[in-house]
Amino acid sequence: MTTDVVRIRRKSLETFCQQVFQHHGLSEDDARIAAAVLVAADARGIPSHGVARLHRYVNGLRTGLVLPDAPVEVVVDTPSSIVLDAHGAMGAPVGVRAMECVIDKARSNGAAFGCVRDSNHFGIAGYYAMMAPPEDMLGIAMTNTAALSVPTFGRQVMFGTNPLAFAAPADKERAFVLDMSTSVVTRGKIEVYDRLGRELPVGWAVDKTGRPARDPRSLLDDMFDRVGGGILPLGGMGEDLGGHKGYGLAVMIDVLCAVLCGAPFGSAVADARTSSGRVSHFFGAIRIDTFRDPSEFRRDVDRMLADLRECPRAEGAERVYYAGQKEFEHERECLLRGVLLLRQTYDRICATGEECGLAAPPTLTTGAVSD
Amino acid sequence: MTTDVVRIRRKSLETFCQQVFQHHGLSEDDARIAAAVLVAADARGIPSHGVARLHRYVNGLRTGLVLPDAPVEVVVDTPSSIVLDAHGAMGAPVGVRAMECVIDKARSNGAAFGCVRDSNHFGIAGYYAMMAPPEDMLGIAMTNTAALSVPTFGRQVMFGTNPLAFAAPADKERAFVLDMSTSVVTRGKIEVYDRLGRELPVGWAVDKTGRPARDPRSLLDDMFDRVGGGILPLGGMGEDLGGHKGYGLAVMIDVLCAVLCGAPFGSAVADARTSSGRVSHFFGAIRIDTFRDPSEFRRDVDRMLADLRECPRAEGAERVYYAGQKEFEHERECLLRGVLLLRQTYDRICATGEECGLAAPPTLTTGAVSD
Repeated sequence: MTTDVVRIRRKSLETFCQQVFQHHGLSEDDARIAAAVLVAADARGIPSHGVARLHRYVNGLRTGLVLPDAPVEVVVDTPSSIVLDAHGAMGAPVGVRAMECVIDKARSNGAAFGCVRDSNHFGIAGYYAMMAPPEDMLGIAMTNTAALSVPTFGRQVMFGTNPLAFAAPADKERAFVLDMSTSVVTRGKIEVYDRLGRELPVGWAVDKTGRPARDPRSLLDDMFDRVGGGILPLGGMGEDLGGHKGYGLAVMIDVLCAVLCGAPFGSAVADARTSSGRVSHFFGAIRIDTFRDPSEFRRDVDRMLADLRECPRAEGAERVYYAGQKEFEHERECLLRGVLLLRQTYDRICATGEECGLAAPPTLTTGAVSD
Repeated sequence: MTTDVVRIRRKSLETFCQQVFQHHGLSEDDARIAAAVLVAADARGIPSHGVARLHRYVNGLRTGLVLPDAPVEVVVDTPSSIVLDAHGAMGAPVGVRAMECVIDKARSNGAAFGCVRDSNHFGIAGYYAMMAPPEDMLGIAMTNTAALSVPTFGRQVMFGTNPLAFAAPADKERAFVLDMSTSVVTRGKIEVYDRLGRELPVGWAVDKTGRPARDPRSLLDDMFDRVGGGILPLGGMGEDLGGHKGYGLAVMIDVLCAVLCGAPFGSAVADARTSSGRVSHFFGAIRIDTFRDPSEFRRDVDRMLADLRECPRAEGAERVYYAGQKEFEHERECLLRGVLLLRQTYDRICATGEECGLAAPPTLTTGAVSD
């Protein structure tokens, strides 16, 4: 089977998204940042968090869940910490500003952390963590999400797919960038199986009775209506393969993002039908030179990452990757050939643009790739 | 089937272990701390890290891998960070002192972190993380371990089972204490299957070709000799259930514990035949009142943890637990009834004590429990 795809220059795609956001009331600066974060996901090969979500962001702006001119409030400000109340602002711009602030504070304080509450979907967590390595810092970013995951031995969603990102600078190897949800899969993957009419693999989710969920459609409905059922934490069902560990990680992230700044947590975080719900984020930065010489650190990370990608492969496996490696390779290819989008994603963003009177972003190439 | 067990007063068990350690050259203070950390594992229901390891510690002290009087050196000391070189000292005492120092620094700096390099096995990571909540801080503790885990798509051990612990204070609910290895299982569990002569479940480990390992004995040998094969990261085999996420977490922990302080990392960390090898640790503390009022934080953690344990259960499941809950319940029972040990563990520590001319610690009760 083949899938129709197009390629678009990264800059064109960013400008297009920026214009859509500006049309919906974002300032030029905020729109530019939101577009950059969105397109970075496609460029890095994470299309679930890319421009395929543009219409969801626009829905959020239209329905008032995302407020384009919300006054971001500084609730707490100490040498090592900041708490921002986004009051419903767009997630990416307030996220980038919070991480910039955390990096600034870490510069003078050695380490600093920040929370943003009452924010919105902020795209890929890795974007924010990756702001730290160029400053010779370790970067951390997390967010809670709508409750989509069930605790080990439970059958009701009690926390989100809560992603965690961690970035450490390297030298020749670019960087180590871990960017992972703490559930086995994200809702996007369940939705893909629904569209394809496929049964869910055992170990991804449980139904409303707490048994393995096989039908993606009824799972999605039951999860949304909170009838029961949800995605399993990393490690899967029960404790045999460590499901309680993924569960614990997800709760840890909810503590850091939400409880630490007095924001809603757990099952109180919910999505709307057509857009994401309000969420909270956590950011951190640690200066490497408070531990050792950063150039020596980078050299050792290089050695570590080279060791990992050169690890003897399992029979039948093609390559061993380290976290972030695939994404950097994808990004380099997109820089040379344009950002790859599914034709159906392209058509959808063009329709979203048309509603604002915007011309479609020009394609560099069109074609098909085999699945 | 039933298993013979004994119960021993916690204090008696601690005193006994302390005397063993003092006999092997540890100072009174160091021996007391090492004993407290060891016994805490049994008291909390984590016998893999408890007094069953006493003879391994003694082996380490006998063979010089653990040096009872190593001068711990302060390599870096800033307001937000500390790096200690343990020069082969016992893990627990230097770990406790590093965490105390990190907590002190966080008190004035808001947040602080520390690394200990060239250290030894430090017991349960949760012990150190749990030192922070009584100070109204979030606690973090990690360690790397001998390389026992394979990267996703690899077939050679490249990093450890690297545990991560995180503790946050609660009010009535005690605390949220996550303490987890980042591999599906630890080596201890493979050893149990070996002793029982059972096949390993698919998803725990791969053999030297990178296919699912079923025979525990040859896996343990091949891992030790670095022929190939190893334990899978949390998430299991390949990427379908998120094995690349556990892999990324384990590497992140190796970066924080070892690369950040210039210690050996990855496959360079190895155990000896009869004791654990030299490892490195990472500790962190973040003051909650730099974000919000700690009593409000505790109240919200209470609410979160109560929500989780009251989550509707999957059909056939008995209870839903939050991280640390089982351990606190176990600890309370051990306080009332004595610390539970397998008879074979008890016999072994008695033999270790006898070699130093020590009397066996008195048992409160003996009996059998059904498996």
